[in-house]
Amino acid sequence: MIKLSDRREMAARVVARCRELAAYSEVAGETTRTFLSEPMREVHRLVAGWMTSAGMAVTVDAIGNVRGVFGGAGAPRLIIASHLDTVPNAGAFDGILGVMLGIAVVEAFAGAGLPIAIEVIGFSEEEGVRFRRPFLGSMALVGTLDEMTLGVKDTNAVTVSDAVRGFGLDPSRMGEARLSPVTKGYLEFHIEQGPVLESLGRALGVVTALVGQTRLEFTFAGHSNHAGTTPMHLRRDALAAASAWVVAVEELARGTDGLVATVGRIEAFPGAGNVVPGKVTALLDVRHAEDWVRGEAVGRLMDAAASAGAKRGVAVSHRVLMEQAAVGLDVGLTGMLEEAMRNIGEAPVLLASGAGHDAMIVAPHVASVMLFVRSPGGISHHPDEDVLLEDVDAALAVGVEFVRLVAAAY
Amino acid sequence: MIKLSDRREMAARVVARCRELAAYSEVAGETTRTFLSEPMREVHRLVAGWMTSAGMAVTVDAIGNVRGVFGGAGAPRLIIASHLDTVPNAGAFDGILGVMLGIAVVEAFAGAGLPIAIEVIGFSEEEGVRFRRPFLGSMALVGTLDEMTLGVKDTNAVTVSDAVRGFGLDPSRMGEARLSPVTKGYLEFHIEQGPVLESLGRALGVVTALVGQTRLEFTFAGHSNHAGTTPMHLRRDALAAASAWVVAVEELARGTDGLVATVGRIEAFPGAGNVVPGKVTALLDVRHAEDWVRGEAVGRLMDAAASAGAKRGVAVSHRVLMEQAAVGLDVGLTGMLEEAMRNIGEAPVLLASGAGHDAMIVAPHVASVMLFVRSPGGISHHPDEDVLLEDVDAALAVGVEFVRLVAAAY
Repeated sequence: MIKLSDRREMAARVVARCRELAAYSEVAGETTRTFLSEPMREVHRLVAGWMTSAGMAVTVDAIGNVRGVFGGAGAPRLIIASHLDTVPNAGAFDGILGVMLGIAVVEAFAGAGLPIAIEVIGFSEEEGVRFRRPFLGSMALVGTLDEMTLGVKDTNAVTVSDAVRGFGLDPSRMGEARLSPVTKGYLEFHIEQGPVLESLGRALGVVTALVGQTRLEFTFAGHSNHAGTTPMHLRRDALAAASAWVVAVEELARGTDGLVATVGRIEAFPGAGNVVPGKVTALLDVRHAEDWVRGEAVGRLMDAAASAGAKRGVAVSHRVLMEQAAVGLDVGLTGMLEEAMRNIGEAPVLLASGAGHDAMIVAPHVASVMLFVRSPGGISHHPDEDVLLEDVDAALAVGVEFVRLVAAAY
Repeated sequence: MIKLSDRREMAARVVARCRELAAYSEVAGETTRTFLSEPMREVHRLVAGWMTSAGMAVTVDAIGNVRGVFGGAGAPRLIIASHLDTVPNAGAFDGILGVMLGIAVVEAFAGAGLPIAIEVIGFSEEEGVRFRRPFLGSMALVGTLDEMTLGVKDTNAVTVSDAVRGFGLDPSRMGEARLSPVTKGYLEFHIEQGPVLESLGRALGVVTALVGQTRLEFTFAGHSNHAGTTPMHLRRDALAAASAWVVAVEELARGTDGLVATVGRIEAFPGAGNVVPGKVTALLDVRHAEDWVRGEAVGRLMDAAASAGAKRGVAVSHRVLMEQAAVGLDVGLTGMLEEAMRNIGEAPVLLASGAGHDAMIVAPHVASVMLFVRSPGGISHHPDEDVLLEDVDAALAVGVEFVRLVAAAY
């Protein structure tokens, strides 16, 4: 066991390292670091240095993931990973925290020896900013990064493969990025990026599943009319129909456990104060950890839109922009993570992740689990994104205990 | 009495003249003719020519109104007027029809003699396009066009006075534009610009009042959150609040006789499909012929917004952009217009005007009345704006009969 005072110092170092890496940015004065951008070189240098100091053998794979292995190549392996890239004008912890905690867990065992190996990975890409394709790093790890994706171009017409070459890596060696067959499990620490743990007054949460998601665009087509000369009964007001539907969206989601449904974008045309809106477009985002619940909700919201339209002579149509199944995490590892929490005196909190994470990509291939760290104010993807030192300390303690449990089980 | 066949021919000429004038435009291929723009010169020439042929003495006043007087200078005078300017990409009838019908009414009496005088006026400005100030022509007529308005600049920094001078007129002579003290009444023919007459299957409508209007901007301030990670009960969704309010706006207006209330513009911020909207702004337009009904409705809709916000932790504020009292038209002249309709075999239909018209400016100064002509499809301010020949014929017949009744009464 590491001493409590040592652990607190290690947690403080985790936070300090996150903040140190936040200085490496494509844009001065903020943190913006996309896939294999120039500042990523210095991040690689620092991360590799810390990994090496912790006793890991460090490599960079063909997609630009930084990988440090602690322990023998043949030993059953646990991956601890998250990502090194950021959204534009990001905070210091999204992604990075998971990598720094992985290194800290290894540091906790440095010199002690373990019957298993730990591979810490800093994924090169998760946010999807540069190529509008997320999860490039973890997709390379599990072998689902296909040729088509490698050919996708950024706004400067540079392909993923070009970017890989430009960084000094060899896209033809992408196959070697695949995870080792000795890999038995995957752990990802990540900030929650939401307000649930804070609202419960808890530091950590065990993620049971990553929610499935449906995104749709709805169009309400009525008729534009003069707002003064058109009596109410002769209107076909697209915004009135869309508004009744937005209220129905909120009502259904509030009444369905675990469901979130959001109309985040709405546009009314022509958009003049004295014209009855003839057309409205709106984006609906529906998420739930159970695909059948999400499917049923989407169906009911299509009906609600049609009904709101029919009452007002407004035609409603929709198109599906995204349909993504929920991903359940491993029951066995989730149980060990709960046990690890209990062992350090934290009552487990279970929750679904409403956002996508690398674990979603990895879970179908390797038994995976995630631990959420409380997000103060629920804030993420923003310079105000933060963590509490005591929460990072608790996460580190759970991580170390989890590795101990896994090592005993393998 | 003019012969029916003559009247039909005159009505056809009214329509033909409207279409002829529509060709004079600042923009090739459409009808766009703002205050004292270049094509207005040719419109003046044609209108003055038709007035002169009908036996009128023609002048152009200092604001650019074309004015033709038929009959003696000392005789009790009835004005028949509407406007010569248009919105961008307009139809052929809004405004123009009223002037052409005025000329046709005079033509019907040409050679017959009348105990009253008729002054036909083509107002230079009603739409408010060039200076964002409407009713310049009728305001000069009633003496409410003040120095401040004359100093307002268009997008080229040309003032109203500059424009007047540029057209060859003298802004210092604005006082001479005031209506003659012998003026006893004002009649305006105008297309309805709405669907009411068409929905009733009627050609003409007697306008009892021009509705009062309140325009407000509402702001709903909640909190932006991640649409995946924020459970419904922890949201402060500004769009959900605004939508519940839009539904309340529609419901109140539907339940209040003669009230129209419209949310024509809505904007949700940040406006991304996967972000709970933290802020919404919306424009509300409320109109009614009775000011107290409008006032009560506005109050209730402020309450409805506050209540929709309070339920969701969303702060609601508003500011008043426009507050305009209703203008009642003259009961005596309205009665004569109804009588004129009955005399030609048309059962009178009474309605309020939901849009503003020059009659609104003139009515506080001279007994005024308006006759609406059915708008096919309720369409106006659009190239598809139209009139039915039979409706123009009926309007002409009512106009002639109305003049006869007025002449007998004065």
